[in-house]
Amino acid sequence: MKKEILEKLLKDVQKGDISVEEALEGLKHFPYQDLGYAKIDHHREIRTGYPEVVYCEGKSIEQIKGIFAHIVSKGDNIIGTRANTEKFSAVKSIIPEAVWYEEAGIIGVTLNKKETLNPPISIITAGTSDHRVAEEAAITAELLGNSVNRIYDAGVAGIHRLVDQLPIIRESKVVIVIAGMEGALASVVGGLVDMPVIAVPTSVGYGANFQGVSALLAMLTSCASGVSVVNIDNGFGAGFNASMINRI
Amino acid sequence: MKKEILEKLLKDVQKGDISVEEALEGLKHFPYQDLGYAKIDHHREIRTGYPEVVYCEGKSIEQIKGIFAHIVSKGDNIIGTRANTEKFSAVKSIIPEAVWYEEAGIIGVTLNKKETLNPPISIITAGTSDHRVAEEAAITAELLGNSVNRIYDAGVAGIHRLVDQLPIIRESKVVIVIAGMEGALASVVGGLVDMPVIAVPTSVGYGANFQGVSALLAMLTSCASGVSVVNIDNGFGAGFNASMINRI
Amino acid sequence: MKKEILEKLLKDVQKGDISVEEALEGLKHFPYQDLGYAKIDHHREIRTGYPEVVYCEGKSIEQIKGIFAHIVSKGDNIIGTRANTEKFSAVKSIIPEAVWYEEAGIIGVTLNKKETLNPPISIITAGTSDHRVAEEAAITAELLGNSVNRIYDAGVAGIHRLVDQLPIIRESKVVIVIAGMEGALASVVGGLVDMPVIAVPTSVGYGANFQGVSALLAMLTSCASGVSVVNIDNGFGAGFNASMINRI
Amino acid sequence: MKKEILEKLLKDVQKGDISVEEALEGLKHFPYQDLGYAKIDHHREIRTGYPEVVYCEGKSIEQIKGIFAHIVSKGDNIIGTRANTEKFSAVKSIIPEAVWYEEAGIIGVTLNKKETLNPPISIITAGTSDHRVAEEAAITAELLGNSVNRIYDAGVAGIHRLVDQLPIIRESKVVIVIAGMEGALASVVGGLVDMPVIAVPTSVGYGANFQGVSALLAMLTSCASGVSVVNIDNGFGAGFNASMINRI
Amino acid sequence: MKKEILEKLLKDVQKGDISVEEALEGLKHFPYQDLGYAKIDHHREIRTGYPEVVYCEGKSIEQIKGIFAHIVSKGDNIIGTRANTEKFSAVKSIIPEAVWYEEAGIIGVTLNKKETLNPPISIITAGTSDHRVAEEAAITAELLGNSVNRIYDAGVAGIHRLVDQLPIIRESKVVIVIAGMEGALASVVGGLVDMPVIAVPTSVGYGANFQGVSALLAMLTSCASGVSVVNIDNGFGAGFNASMINRI
Amino acid sequence: MKKEILEKLLKDVQKGDISVEEALEGLKHFPYQDLGYAKIDHHREIRTGYPEVVYCEGKSIEQIKGIFAHIVSKGDNIIGTRANTEKFSAVKSIIPEAVWYEEAGIIGVTLNKKETLNPPISIITAGTSDHRVAEEAAITAELLGNSVNRIYDAGVAGIHRLVDQLPIIRESKVVIVIAGMEGALASVVGGLVDMPVIAVPTSVGYGANFQGVSALLAMLTSCASGVSVVNIDNGFGAGFNASMINRI
Amino acid sequence: MKKEILEKLLKDVQKGDISVEEALEGLKHFPYQDLGYAKIDHHREIRTGYPEVVYCEGKSIEQIKGIFAHIVSKGDNIIGTRANTEKFSAVKSIIPEAVWYEEAGIIGVTLNKKETLNPPISIITAGTSDHRVAEEAAITAELLGNSVNRIYDAGVAGIHRLVDQLPIIRESKVVIVIAGMEGALASVVGGLVDMPVIAVPTSVGYGANFQGVSALLAMLTSCASGVSVVNIDNGFGAGFNASMINRI
Amino acid sequence: MKKEILEKLLKDVQKGDISVEEALEGLKHFPYQDLGYAKIDHHREIRTGYPEVVYCEGKSIEQIKGIFAHIVSKGDNIIGTRANTEKFSAVKSIIPEAVWYEEAGIIGVTLNKKETLNPPISIITAGTSDHRVAEEAAITAELLGNSVNRIYDAGVAGIHRLVDQLPIIRESKVVIVIAGMEGALASVVGGLVDMPVIAVPTSVGYGANFQGVSALLAMLTSCASGVSVVNIDNGFGAGFNASMINRI
Repeated sequence: MKKEILEKLLKDVQKGDISVEEALEGLKHFPYQDLGYAKIDHHREIRTGYPEVVYCEGKSIEQIKGIFAHIVSKGDNIIGTRANTEKFSAVKSIIPEAVWYEEAGIIGVTLNKKETLNPPISIITAGTSDHRVAEEAAITAELLGNSVNRIYDAGVAGIHRLVDQLPIIRESKVVIVIAGMEGALASVVGGLVDMPVIAVPTSVGYGANFQGVSALLAMLTSCASGVSVVNIDNGFGAGFNASMINRI
Repeated sequence: MKKEILEKLLKDVQKGDISVEEALEGLKHFPYQDLGYAKIDHHREIRTGYPEVVYCEGKSIEQIKGIFAHIVSKGDNIIGTRANTEKFSAVKSIIPEAVWYEEAGIIGVTLNKKETLNPPISIITAGTSDHRVAEEAAITAELLGNSVNRIYDAGVAGIHRLVDQLPIIRESKVVIVIAGMEGALASVVGGLVDMPVIAVPTSVGYGANFQGVSALLAMLTSCASGVSVVNIDNGFGAGFNASMINRI
Repeated sequence: MKKEILEKLLKDVQKGDISVEEALEGLKHFPYQDLGYAKIDHHREIRTGYPEVVYCEGKSIEQIKGIFAHIVSKGDNIIGTRANTEKFSAVKSIIPEAVWYEEAGIIGVTLNKKETLNPPISIITAGTSDHRVAEEAAITAELLGNSVNRIYDAGVAGIHRLVDQLPIIRESKVVIVIAGMEGALASVVGGLVDMPVIAVPTSVGYGANFQGVSALLAMLTSCASGVSVVNIDNGFGAGFNASMINRI
Repeated sequence: MKKEILEKLLKDVQKGDISVEEALEGLKHFPYQDLGYAKIDHHREIRTGYPEVVYCEGKSIEQIKGIFAHIVSKGDNIIGTRANTEKFSAVKSIIPEAVWYEEAGIIGVTLNKKETLNPPISIITAGTSDHRVAEEAAITAELLGNSVNRIYDAGVAGIHRLVDQLPIIRESKVVIVIAGMEGALASVVGGLVDMPVIAVPTSVGYGANFQGVSALLAMLTSCASGVSVVNIDNGFGAGFNASMINRI
Repeated sequence: MKKEILEKLLKDVQKGDISVEEALEGLKHFPYQDLGYAKIDHHREIRTGYPEVVYCEGKSIEQIKGIFAHIVSKGDNIIGTRANTEKFSAVKSIIPEAVWYEEAGIIGVTLNKKETLNPPISIITAGTSDHRVAEEAAITAELLGNSVNRIYDAGVAGIHRLVDQLPIIRESKVVIVIAGMEGALASVVGGLVDMPVIAVPTSVGYGANFQGVSALLAMLTSCASGVSVVNIDNGFGAGFNASMINRI
Repeated sequence: MKKEILEKLLKDVQKGDISVEEALEGLKHFPYQDLGYAKIDHHREIRTGYPEVVYCEGKSIEQIKGIFAHIVSKGDNIIGTRANTEKFSAVKSIIPEAVWYEEAGIIGVTLNKKETLNPPISIITAGTSDHRVAEEAAITAELLGNSVNRIYDAGVAGIHRLVDQLPIIRESKVVIVIAGMEGALASVVGGLVDMPVIAVPTSVGYGANFQGVSALLAMLTSCASGVSVVNIDNGFGAGFNASMINRI
Repeated sequence: MKKEILEKLLKDVQKGDISVEEALEGLKHFPYQDLGYAKIDHHREIRTGYPEVVYCEGKSIEQIKGIFAHIVSKGDNIIGTRANTEKFSAVKSIIPEAVWYEEAGIIGVTLNKKETLNPPISIITAGTSDHRVAEEAAITAELLGNSVNRIYDAGVAGIHRLVDQLPIIRESKVVIVIAGMEGALASVVGGLVDMPVIAVPTSVGYGANFQGVSALLAMLTSCASGVSVVNIDNGFGAGFNASMINRI
Repeated sequence: MKKEILEKLLKDVQKGDISVEEALEGLKHFPYQDLGYAKIDHHREIRTGYPEVVYCEGKSIEQIKGIFAHIVSKGDNIIGTRANTEKFSAVKSIIPEAVWYEEAGIIGVTLNKKETLNPPISIITAGTSDHRVAEEAAITAELLGNSVNRIYDAGVAGIHRLVDQLPIIRESKVVIVIAGMEGALASVVGGLVDMPVIAVPTSVGYGANFQGVSALLAMLTSCASGVSVVNIDNGFGAGFNASMINRI
């Protein structure tokens, strides 16, 4: 609960502008709107400066339409992650501004465009198979107003592919490293740059990869300082976090 | 290998200032000094802007003394983590400037003091038992030139202890959340602030805590955006990462 | 084996009302009826005060019809969990009173309606995706004679959505908290209320969620007192347990 | 934050009895007292009806003395868990009323004695080695005002030892089952009684017991309805939870 | 390599009946026949007294037909496990004596019928869902010449269903206990009988069952003596092992 | 509850020899004696034909003395497992017949000696380090009236050491295989003999052995039929189980 | 970065044959070609003496066609692993020389045939179900210029099937052992031969096999010296590694 | 069983030089000598070309002395791994030629010195803390007749420390890479060299390192071809394996 809002409410009560009962009502209901199946947080953009994010997996078409319609009616931007074409079509049918980023699995609705930040966030992947996760991170970052520098398929088995990209990587304020298998790329990048590295383990691999566990553990125990980690395949989280850092 | 250094080397060869053999020698040896048991990276501070960090666990007294002496002789600052009083005494006997941060287990040698950055980094812990990890993060951040806002014992079992600290937390550019057991504090803080949250799971707990795994998994799967995670009990990593973000 | 029944049997023998052989037969057969593929426990409702519960997963249509028919023939109520529409149709074809609760996956047969208990059991979920598990808990509790207070999508990423529901939550005698991902909601609720909290981890999430393990471990290691845990996605168990507590 | 306290504060402001600034200060500071190393929650007993609980593991002698002294100075009862004789002696030296329950590892300070509730909570253990955890549960329950019915060493390898205790077990409103190894006792008891069963897995065993994991998983997947589970070796949590249920 | 066969070979060499080269050839080739894709062990029935067992999963229709044809051509009995109707049909088309045990997933070819052993092996299951595994054990035991006493759906949640079956269980020389979920049945039976108990954990359950791990660990850590364990869902192994014991 | 005892009780009641109340008392108390800290099962030897077994780990000296004294006073044999010299001395001081088997960690009290069974049980170990577990199995089997054939240090890295022992192994009716590391010995023996193999994984090894998990999993998934498994390091369980089979 | 290439570059600069800018450009671009979705490493065959390997899983048809076309245009050989018929057809449509090895899942393009090395690499499998992995290893080794000695279905349950193959196995310089379930074959072979053994655990099995973990752990903890391990089901890695050793 | 020995035996029988009984005796006893607590394999050096290796952990002083004395009496070399100073002293007291390699924990007895092989095996470690494992590998390799090139503390956080060592690494025929934490060094080296890489994960690290699991999984899932893995901390295995390859 934000101090300023509480303070204003208290002052309104003191001045007699609103009654105690009204204040209590205000306190109780202000932060969100209850659709029954979802409680939408309209003050989120004001509070955090970011659009509302809708995690589409596990939600029905009807729920998603309802949520998108409600948020758009307030004039807010939306990022819908882990969507599919069916869910996008449903949203598109009611919100013509909706854009479909297929590789990223993201539905974007941008009513108020922000100016794009510079320098770009660098996103480095170890292999071609990490593409989907990388695009989720990249599109998230772009929808949040950042530019992105995509450096894909630069894994450590051929480390020279990484080394010559270093000059442009070093222009970023924050870098996202995305790798499956043994996830060594995060440590190698972390040792070569002087900025925060957000590491995303992916579930690319088989056997002792255990759906991303090998990369996850490797990234968490990286010998390079400055590496922090998000969940397996969590491109969105990395893009969001990088955007926060980039906007400082 | 930094482009500028390579470029200068190439130019020196072109101008005939140094021979090809000399250039090759320079390329081969410039980046570190080999003590036999350790390869010390003198260009690290120049390259990354940070002091040399020595992880003291698993190194002998003699090795530690040798490494500290060598770095100090070059005029660099040092942070020695996971140390103990015995190792500190050995260092102190040869480097009078060495300072012992007992709760953090850190030996600090600050030959060149930087000015302290503002606003402070907020470090929030869930319980009194997370103290040691928190101090490792805090002293690391301070030795790297940041000020720190310590908010200890503010776990979610009594969430009001957190809520009234929010105004000062919100003045930070980055926040570190340290929690063992179920690690819920990271999600709660992540939902209340608009900045990067670096979460540190601790091994505080027993049984199904599995030496920090419960907190680690919880933080990785946090429903709050903007949370990234470092290794269990890795206060140093969090402090280092937060400092990188704070200095942007 | 219930003392009173044994005692009566022994008294009947003593009085000569039944022979030793008859007593032995009685002891042997009284507690259940053997359908071959299932042993139905008719004394369960008498013994425990609850309807017979049929776990429908892994049972064939024919087995389910047989079991339902047999129980209904004795006039007992039934709760069939983890069912699907096909199994419901089969039951409905022979028991017109059968009711289908689709979201909960429950078939209910209520021959003897109990009066509804008050105050309601509060059921709180972290996100929309936990809906199915929540409905399994809710319908179970309702079929067992309780009223239910549904508070859905109140996760900790926006903790104000929970706080304003506290007054109605506090009217319950027991609360069920259902959450996937990091399961932090159980700790937060546990710290805000003064009653038993039954926590249900759900398999909602991906990556380091490991099909509900992150939430399970988090709930087991909760820093809040008064939280106990049932199996991942076990809405039925939570509803049943809460009903037991609510009826005290 | 309790509605009534907020409401009173608002009314005081409306009446002009306190200024907005005073109200804000009151909101900020009322819920706890900050000792630096700990934030003590004096309103906990009022809010939850329970004494303050201090988890002594991982806290220094000085911290424990400070916390106990502070709570006692407010006239509150205290339960100190996971303590040892050294920590007890330190507390005893400043609080003569402190009592040491050695097998339970609990320090109790009871300034205001409650009347003892009836019927007793039944606590059943599988083997002699589960004693310590059982006593933690039993003493916790007793200090919270309950009477306890101890039924120790009644494991399923000799199930007749359990069966003849059923009549007295059935007089309880809630039962705690404590077992290591395969934890089967929880399922067996759950099938024989008609009340909530709180299961406590213990780390008693070796090999594939994995420090309590075998019992933990067994209890979570119990085929008996009405069983909920707390953390491995968490006697305190079971006693606390049972007390909550017993007081309904 | 059997001593007698080796001895005879050596004697034949000594007598000059066969040359050294022939002896070496004999040693090399006697124990099996190489189909290229499989090495069939014709001496197995002689050596171990049991029919050849063919694990059908992961073998192609053609491979299975080839293996069955080859064994039958030698007049040996066959047990084909983990088969399906398609594979059975293929075998049936070339071996009219083949019999399909659908619930067990077993193809049996019995060219030489053994007399049935008595007393029967008792096979006890916890629930209806363990049926398939139980039938794999039962049919295996029957094809190996044993009679079987099926006691299904006798789980510990209603322990009286088990108790009255004890007299017939006690007539066996060995008992197989099959249970999923928490696997407690193995311990309960182990405490009530005086004979070897072969426990089979099944993958029946969900969540913290982890595809049979909860039952597996519980059975391995059983507090009852005399319980040994086979792999999850390994009905065949249990039936085979019980047959070995029953034939002593 | 044994049918015959129940039957006799019922007949006594029918004849009027005992009252209903006496019968109930008899039923309630006959099976064990309650020492407070332990419930001793005097009918166990009658019921199962085996001595009482006392697991000494986690029991105090006083508890162990009390339990041994009580059992001996009834004239029963005792096997005390996981003991140490201190516990043995305490028992010896009150029971002169007590014998200490140091390598096995077993205290044996044999008041009524059974005649020794033949043929011997074969116990095969992979390495010298498995000695302690092997002796626990061997002494258990011997105290239960079996003879034992010890074949130690016959691991698969030098398989010829095993092969020449086969003739004497094949004279047994049951074999125990004890191995740490990769536990391959169980499969190799299982493929060479025609009798039940009880496999005991040991915690001998390091790294990916995970305290016996590698051997445990290997033995559970053995490609040889006829192998069943007991808990890691559970020599007692293997000896007890083998004795049961040997006595058939 | 290879010393000779760097040296030549520096010398060219010194001689004035190329400018510093050209040298930098050369350093930056020489090692690979960027297709956007993939960075192809043309110098790999020069650098490592091996063809380019394309891991086809997770790459789209278009990406695979692009990568194959590019490599072939340079005259290099290619091995495409984890392919399927659809992907092969696409490659075949543009590269007529492409060959499909169905059981191995490999697409081979051999523009420059090497002479075949002798002696052959021995590849031993435990069972018929390990066939696919074995063929991946065998075809890889063959495409890399080795001959292969296939010894399939020689598992330890019938160890005589292995023993008579030993003479031909001993002619190899390196042996690959492929086994699922308990993976004991690696230890048995390791104890019988005097050469490096590359062990490949397969995911063949069920239950406690955990998709190959039982074989993986067993192979890692093998009591036989000389065994090293690659990832579960990684036939390619074993074939590649064996080829490296065979070519020494 | 070696073909030649068997062949000679058979020929001796054919010629009448030995009787069948003598041949059988010879077959049975030739391969080892039974000390009771150990079966020593005297033909191992002949068979495999390597000294006898004694794993000293878990063996008593007396057992170790007996085993060393016996092997030395046959004139064989010995490598005793995982020893300590106490065990070394005991061996030294009876075998003056014994040498103690403290950092490696190895006792070496070299009665017959082999000439040293060239080129050296390269052993690369990531950090100073991996020293002990590296020395176990190095001393093992040296005692087996190889020379060793030690490159310690060359982890990926400062990748330039590795790059300039490449020329000398490339002179080896096989390389050992030893790393804890995230184990990325194995992938990086694997991508830079054209020879077999034997990777040794170490237990150096904390938290999500899980005693070496993070490095183990990373190395198993390495994106670089040519990497095979031995057990965590298994320096001996790596040295032995590398020696086998080096001697080809």
